[in-house]
Amino acid sequence: MDPKIRLYVRDQLCDAQIISLERNQANYLFAVMRQKVSDHILIFNNSDGEWLAEIISGSKRVVRLRCLNKIRPSLAPPDVWLFFSPIKKSRTDFIVEKATELGVAKIFPTHSEFTNSERINQSRLQAHAIEAAEQCGGTYVPKVHTICKLIDTLENWPEARNIFFCNEDNLKPIRNLSSFPNGAWAIFIGPEGGFSQNEKNHFLKHPKTFSVSLGPRILRADTAVVSALTLWQSNFGDWI
Amino acid sequence: MDPKIRLYVRDQLCDAQIISLERNQANYLFAVMRQKVSDHILIFNNSDGEWLAEIISGSKRVVRLRCLNKIRPSLAPPDVWLFFSPIKKSRTDFIVEKATELGVAKIFPTHSEFTNSERINQSRLQAHAIEAAEQCGGTYVPKVHTICKLIDTLENWPEARNIFFCNEDNLKPIRNLSSFPNGAWAIFIGPEGGFSQNEKNHFLKHPKTFSVSLGPRILRADTAVVSALTLWQSNFGDWI
Repeated sequence: MDPKIRLYVRDQLCDAQIISLERNQANYLFAVMRQKVSDHILIFNNSDGEWLAEIISGSKRVVRLRCLNKIRPSLAPPDVWLFFSPIKKSRTDFIVEKATELGVAKIFPTHSEFTNSERINQSRLQAHAIEAAEQCGGTYVPKVHTICKLIDTLENWPEARNIFFCNEDNLKPIRNLSSFPNGAWAIFIGPEGGFSQNEKNHFLKHPKTFSVSLGPRILRADTAVVSALTLWQSNFGDWI
Repeated sequence: MDPKIRLYVRDQLCDAQIISLERNQANYLFAVMRQKVSDHILIFNNSDGEWLAEIISGSKRVVRLRCLNKIRPSLAPPDVWLFFSPIKKSRTDFIVEKATELGVAKIFPTHSEFTNSERINQSRLQAHAIEAAEQCGGTYVPKVHTICKLIDTLENWPEARNIFFCNEDNLKPIRNLSSFPNGAWAIFIGPEGGFSQNEKNHFLKHPKTFSVSLGPRILRADTAVVSALTLWQSNFGDWI
């Protein structure tokens, strides 16, 4: 029977490498999943792909694994970042889950003028990204950053990165996407109330901004994240 | 102040038309939202767009409204149907919500070989589609059908409708989408375990099938619905 348990680890993975799991993962393996010594699980990190590993010793407090063989190569996402505005808890979790599945390099919760939710729990969202990658079979966990401010971010923008600005005012046909440049990108999704006029002006005067329409209907912020990432991946990413 | 309450109604809407609301909606307006006679709300149906309406009489049991003026025209979705396999409750609700937002004409929960969830509550899912349209500002509620069987559906397929088959085996570049025909379409998303080989063969031998890849990562079924609809809408629908 194929091992079903998949865990993300931070250690380097290579032939015969010994890995120690932290307390939470040890508890999950031994107390929740009732694993025992000599059982096999799958482990992955952000650079060495997915490996079959054998449990060589352990308890609910500490587990040691040995890497047996590489099952799948690493599939790192293209160089795209996601900036989104935190909304209510379950939908923010959903955004982090879907961004991880669809493939982004970094996730930036962003405070903008109409953001309702002032605070995020960065470590909880990072744990959610890890769980999403473990469950969907991914081999990359994007870094979830602490909350940033939209205007500060735009004023200190890295010179070479293009801005995929999801702009509900934009009526240009979506076919225009084919004229956008390749290279590094960042996708910006506003809060439920949209971006303020001042924020829109900041985007529109920025030389790296490309405006994108997400159709004639009003999309919720969580839907907009999945749609924007799908458009980006299918035009510039690794879905091509 | 703009009225914020939006309700879907089945009646025809036109100037000075009087509408009676059913018990659930009357209770929502008077008991939950504390509305009173002469307050204004927004109502819409599937063909006459969104109207401003005045409450002319009412209680928690029955409410009468008068249509004042049309606020927005109807935006019916393109002729695309969604077939999906029911998964666990919250993710099935999510699929119905997102399909309503992104714009589909009809939704068909579909039983296939690897479907885990045998039953659906059709009227609960239909209510969920109504709520999604009310909340996202849509002017169309897709019909949610009772559960159908995949193989029977394919064997009795309407002659003129193309099949957008989301096929995880497909490695053709997504740029191929531009060669697909216009016209009526249906999108098929499999259950978490994918379609069986027998089901895949049924799709592949069907003359109306066009296979589509959703990228190199494994997507959960709910993510696949949003991504497939985004690809379809941005290539053949009303996002162009």
